[in-house]
Amino acid sequence: MSAQAVEVEPGGTPDLVATETPDRYPTRRVAEVKLLPREEPTVWGQPSDGPFDAETLAGFDADGFLTVEDLIDAAEVAAYGAEMRRLAVDPRFMADSRTVVDHDTQEVRSIFEVHKISEVFGNLANDPRLVDLARQILGSEVYVHQSRVTFRPGFSSNDFYWHSDFETWHAEDGMPGMRAVGISIALTPDLVYNGGRMIMPGSHKTFVPCITESASDRYEWSLAGQEIGMPDAEHVSTLANRHGIRLFTGPAGSATVFDSNCMHGSNGNITPYPRSNVFIVYNSVQNTLVEPYAATSRRPDFIAARDFTPVTC
Amino acid sequence: MSAQAVEVEPGGTPDLVATETPDRYPTRRVAEVKLLPREEPTVWGQPSDGPFDAETLAGFDADGFLTVEDLIDAAEVAAYGAEMRRLAVDPRFMADSRTVVDHDTQEVRSIFEVHKISEVFGNLANDPRLVDLARQILGSEVYVHQSRVTFRPGFSSNDFYWHSDFETWHAEDGMPGMRAVGISIALTPDLVYNGGRMIMPGSHKTFVPCITESASDRYEWSLAGQEIGMPDAEHVSTLANRHGIRLFTGPAGSATVFDSNCMHGSNGNITPYPRSNVFIVYNSVQNTLVEPYAATSRRPDFIAARDFTPVTC
Repeated sequence: MSAQAVEVEPGGTPDLVATETPDRYPTRRVAEVKLLPREEPTVWGQPSDGPFDAETLAGFDADGFLTVEDLIDAAEVAAYGAEMRRLAVDPRFMADSRTVVDHDTQEVRSIFEVHKISEVFGNLANDPRLVDLARQILGSEVYVHQSRVTFRPGFSSNDFYWHSDFETWHAEDGMPGMRAVGISIALTPDLVYNGGRMIMPGSHKTFVPCITESASDRYEWSLAGQEIGMPDAEHVSTLANRHGIRLFTGPAGSATVFDSNCMHGSNGNITPYPRSNVFIVYNSVQNTLVEPYAATSRRPDFIAARDFTPVTC
Repeated sequence: MSAQAVEVEPGGTPDLVATETPDRYPTRRVAEVKLLPREEPTVWGQPSDGPFDAETLAGFDADGFLTVEDLIDAAEVAAYGAEMRRLAVDPRFMADSRTVVDHDTQEVRSIFEVHKISEVFGNLANDPRLVDLARQILGSEVYVHQSRVTFRPGFSSNDFYWHSDFETWHAEDGMPGMRAVGISIALTPDLVYNGGRMIMPGSHKTFVPCITESASDRYEWSLAGQEIGMPDAEHVSTLANRHGIRLFTGPAGSATVFDSNCMHGSNGNITPYPRSNVFIVYNSVQNTLVEPYAATSRRPDFIAARDFTPVTC
C-alpha cells in the first residue's frame, strides 16, 4: 500500500512523505491469518545511551517489556492521582471527545491526550525519567504518539481481550514499523486479583494479523467490548503456549515499559479495588505515521498524534 | 418462618419435621441489609475425629477454608478428567435437566448430581479422603447435599460475582444453619490468571443478607450472569477491607475445602487455559433441609438433595 502525503499539524514537523511505503505487516484485510516474524530490532540504542545497562536491555529485547519499581515516588503518585480525579469531574472534559465515559455509570473511564490537557501530565511526558529510557530503547529522538489516563473500576466484568497495540496503530493510524514504546505507570496497586495487565513475554517478535475490519470509533467502543483488531483464539493459544503469560503486580508508582507489539490483555475485576494508570507512548521520529494501512480514514489526532515534534527535555 | 413438613424422597430418611424453624438468617425479603454474625461454630469436631490436627482445624475455624495439596494423585486427575469429558459429550446428558449448557457455544458447562450419574464420581463422593474430613469438620454423619463437575472455558469474560453458597442454600433450599462444607478438587491447574476462586478469609463468620428476590431457575441462569442472591457492593467492600482476598492457585489434584458461608467469587478468564473441577458438598445430618426460607418453591433435588441418607464409607 502506498502512503499518501499527510497533513502537517500546526507546530508539527513535516512528515516524511513516502511515495511508496510497503506494508510489511498486512492485517484486517487478509484472507488467511499467518503469523509473521518481526522485521526490526526491539532495542535500537546502546547501554551508553541511557539509564538501562546491557543486561536490562537484553531482557527487554527478549521479553518485550520490563518493569521499573518506583519510577515515581509516593508523593508523585498522590499528585498524579489527584490531578486525574480533578480532570475526571471537570465538566469541561465530560463533553470533550477526548474523554471516554462509561455508558452505564456515566463515570470517566479514560482521558486521551492528557499531556496536552494537563500541565501536570505534560510535565510527566517531558520528564527525563521517562523520555531517556524511551530514547535509549528506540535509539533516536522521540515524540508522544499517545497519552491517556485510565480508570478501571472495581466490581466490573469488563476485560481487555488480547491484542497488540502495534497491530491497531499500524492498521488504523499508519504507524509503519515497530519502533514505539509504551510506559504505563500504576497509580493504584496492581494486585493479583484486580484485573492487572498480562503480557506474553517474547510475543513482540511475532506479528499476528487480524481478520476483522477496522471501525472508526474503535478507540471509544473498545473500552466496553472488543471485536475489532482481535487476534483469533488459535493464534492467541499458539503464542501463550510458546511464551507463557506474565501477570503484573506491584505497588502504585511502578512502571511497565513495553514494546508496541507485545500481546497483552487483562481480565475483568469483580473485586472492590479499582486500577488506574497513566500511559504515555513514545514513538521514534524515524517511525512517524503515514496513512492508515487498513482503515479508510484516520483516527483523531488525540488518539494517534500527527504532531511529530520531538520531546526536548 | 415456619417450616412445613416436607416430602421424603424414595430411599431418603424422614425429614425432621419442624413445626417452628426460626429464620436466624433472614435474606432476600429484608428491607435493609444489615450484616449478621454467624451463630454456630465453623468446626464441630475434634482433632481425634479425623485427618486434621488441632492447628489445621484452628486455621479452618479462622479462615473458613483450607487447601489440601494433592488430595488425589495424577492418575486420578486423569481418570476424573476423562470421565468428565465422557459425560460432557454423552447425548443422553445433553438433554438432561441436570446438565447446564452454554447458550452460545452449546458446550456443557456443569453437570449436577454427578455422583449419581457416574459410578466414578459416586465412588469419589464416598471416598474416605473426602468424607472423613467433612465428618470431622461438621462433627456428625454427613450426606451429599450437592455434587457437580464444572467446565470453565478459556477465552471467556464470564465471572462469578461474590456470593455465599449458604445464603442461596438457606434462601432457596431451606438449609437451616451453617453446617455444610464444600470440597472442590481441581482437575486442571489453577493459575494466577485463569479465573481461579477467590475467598475472603474469615468472611464465613458474617452473614450478608441480599435484597434481591429469588428466581426459580437461578441454578441455570447463574452460570451466565448473576443478579439473584448478590450481596451489594458496599458490603462486599466492607468484608474485603476487613478480611482481604485470597486467590487460589495450585496444580490439578489439589482441593479447596470451604465452609458454606465463605464469601467467594472468581474473575473471568481471557487466557486460553480452561479450568475444571469436581465439587461435592457435604451437609450435616443435623442440618437437613426444611422448606425454602425465601423462595416460593423448592429447587430441584439434583441441586439441593432431599435424600438425607448418610454416606456410609
